[in-house]
Amino acid sequence: MNAYVTGLTARDSSFVTTANTDQPAVSRVEAYIRAQDFARPTLVIDTEAVARQFAALAQGLGRARIHYAVKANPAPEILRKLHSLGSNFDAASRVELQMCLDAGAAPEQLSFGNTIKRASDIAWAHEQGIDLFAVDAEEEIEKIAANAPGARVYLRIIVDATEAEWPLTRKFGSGRDKALALIAMAKDYGLNPVGLSFHVGSQTRRAAMWAPILDQVAAVWHAAKAEGHELTLLNIGGGFPAFYGREIDAPALYAAEVMRLVQERFGDVPEIMAEPGRGLVAEAGMIAAEVLLVSKKSDDDLHRWVYLDIGRFSGLAETEGEAIRYQFATARDHETTGACILAGPSCDSADVLYEKQPVQLPLGLRAGDKVMIRACGAYTSTYASVGFNGFPPLDVVAI
Amino acid sequence: MNAYVTGLTARDSSFVTTANTDQPAVSRVEAYIRAQDFARPTLVIDTEAVARQFAALAQGLGRARIHYAVKANPAPEILRKLHSLGSNFDAASRVELQMCLDAGAAPEQLSFGNTIKRASDIAWAHEQGIDLFAVDAEEEIEKIAANAPGARVYLRIIVDATEAEWPLTRKFGSGRDKALALIAMAKDYGLNPVGLSFHVGSQTRRAAMWAPILDQVAAVWHAAKAEGHELTLLNIGGGFPAFYGREIDAPALYAAEVMRLVQERFGDVPEIMAEPGRGLVAEAGMIAAEVLLVSKKSDDDLHRWVYLDIGRFSGLAETEGEAIRYQFATARDHETTGACILAGPSCDSADVLYEKQPVQLPLGLRAGDKVMIRACGAYTSTYASVGFNGFPPLDVVAI
Repeated sequence: MNAYVTGLTARDSSFVTTANTDQPAVSRVEAYIRAQDFARPTLVIDTEAVARQFAALAQGLGRARIHYAVKANPAPEILRKLHSLGSNFDAASRVELQMCLDAGAAPEQLSFGNTIKRASDIAWAHEQGIDLFAVDAEEEIEKIAANAPGARVYLRIIVDATEAEWPLTRKFGSGRDKALALIAMAKDYGLNPVGLSFHVGSQTRRAAMWAPILDQVAAVWHAAKAEGHELTLLNIGGGFPAFYGREIDAPALYAAEVMRLVQERFGDVPEIMAEPGRGLVAEAGMIAAEVLLVSKKSDDDLHRWVYLDIGRFSGLAETEGEAIRYQFATARDHETTGACILAGPSCDSADVLYEKQPVQLPLGLRAGDKVMIRACGAYTSTYASVGFNGFPPLDVVAI
Repeated sequence: MNAYVTGLTARDSSFVTTANTDQPAVSRVEAYIRAQDFARPTLVIDTEAVARQFAALAQGLGRARIHYAVKANPAPEILRKLHSLGSNFDAASRVELQMCLDAGAAPEQLSFGNTIKRASDIAWAHEQGIDLFAVDAEEEIEKIAANAPGARVYLRIIVDATEAEWPLTRKFGSGRDKALALIAMAKDYGLNPVGLSFHVGSQTRRAAMWAPILDQVAAVWHAAKAEGHELTLLNIGGGFPAFYGREIDAPALYAAEVMRLVQERFGDVPEIMAEPGRGLVAEAGMIAAEVLLVSKKSDDDLHRWVYLDIGRFSGLAETEGEAIRYQFATARDHETTGACILAGPSCDSADVLYEKQPVQLPLGLRAGDKVMIRACGAYTSTYASVGFNGFPPLDVVAI
């Protein structure tokens, strides 16, 4: 058995079913990284794995339409692959909308989902024929009415704290107490308020965690309908999880259960859209990194420090607060392991990945050793800084 | 009196002496930003202000050599200006070393100050004639001995928690208990261990805060000398502050007082180097940003939310944990102000700048209004992500 496999066998069974049912134990991405040398940290993405995950989610979501959350990873190869499979897209900015159009998407397949939009970008999107916008405040309604007259809008509402691993703040959405007034205002401004959206919280590991959130949204939904607003679109947002070490539901089952919970509360909604990002691409990508230094600060220190050539400012931003816990594999995984503090290469003391909860890595690890970081397909490449400390951004290779 | 001046007059007297003694109340950068329209968030840097600050620090530092910490802002215009003034440089990576060489610096003016270096980058630096390296661990000594035989190295040591505003962790440096053994090891490996370095902590506002740190370093210094190690170089690192709203010592006085504290403890050290980064360039830069949205989540909310077109992932990374508190100016500063939560434009709920301690901004602020962010010359442009959410990196203009 290959040394690289030990990390895989430690995974729980749900992961094995999520991405690799009919695959050999070492994925295509892992085999690729093992066979290559990399001059700098590189994200390798398997577009076939993205396609398999899309199929699994689409199966579970049934009649709900998938709008891939482009911000998770806008690599053109991913956008083209998803477009070829019939995916729609959710974009956060004009640049992302343009990338979707460049990948072949039609304007009616796009949603401008950021609630914070520049007026000139709304006007540009409207000119392109994009006709679906997120909104959560009076001023945003005014901007859309002025720059995309008559457009379809959905109102994003705030839902209360969830069990997600990267929880949302109150940054996005309107309070539920204001929802009906904003829908009425959108109508007064000549817009077409077609429905509601919300976000259950990124990396919501279990479908069952959606239930209390859906209850909150359903209350607003039914109140709006009772007041005569004809809502036809429910946008259930993202939150679909990836495997980072803690058990998650398999994607088709997860999506089907979410849809069952939706059906139970909302009945036959004409249009449902879902915006998986992380849940669609994270597991399809792996980062090839390298150890730069292993050291002990004092002879009686409990833990080593292991420094990689990638850190919080060059792709691993989601380790902030140690929120997302990546899994690591090395060529020494058959050796004895020990706890270590893991840090990035920059001269910034905040560039520490895991310290409160140290990571188990082989004791023999040395400068120059290759380290593979699993499930890095989402929220890595575009988070990388342009060149903090002179380190180049994460390279991306699609296979 | 101009509306923009109100922010300035609220500053304490030490700031006024730091950058603008012989300047009009509105700085060159501020005048430039007021006169222009910007299509995207833009950092405007006044290289003349950098030069004035260099002169002030150099005056205070006396015989200590300034090595500008390039990571603070590697804009070629800044590097060329500082080179023309006789500055030396401290670089964190091969790319930064190359930028210094490109700006005209000689190899002997450069220090490779990152304690975490790729072996091939050490070899490359050695080939260029760069002969001064930071080190804090056995494996790094091995790498330098193998790739830059005979090089001068200084040992970075850990100092205990300081009163700095962006405090350092134990990420960099060796424990003081290991210092003498590492110096001896460097000698055994044929290197030339010339001295010690440390970092008092970024944004250490008062020179007096250096005293207890210098005591710790001096104890190691004198112990090493007592053991027969002939140390000739003391690198006092950075920590020189910029004005972000809390009073700081004026730069020349600050630097002179630090040097007095050093002299008191170390005597006549042959070579002293200082590595100001933030303290040299922060106040010379200002970001031109724009309001994208102002909203209230609920009618009974205490605070508004104000969303800018720049956030934590597009240049304002140092607002993490609300550590660095930037000062803002708008064209409405003569109007009544109120507290608001300030956030960035991305679809990431972590992209909130100030929430625990809200910011006072004019109540009339609206989407489209220009916002100027002061003292942004350091740790902004290179921290910006390559394109998270499709937002372009911070633009940089040097005047």
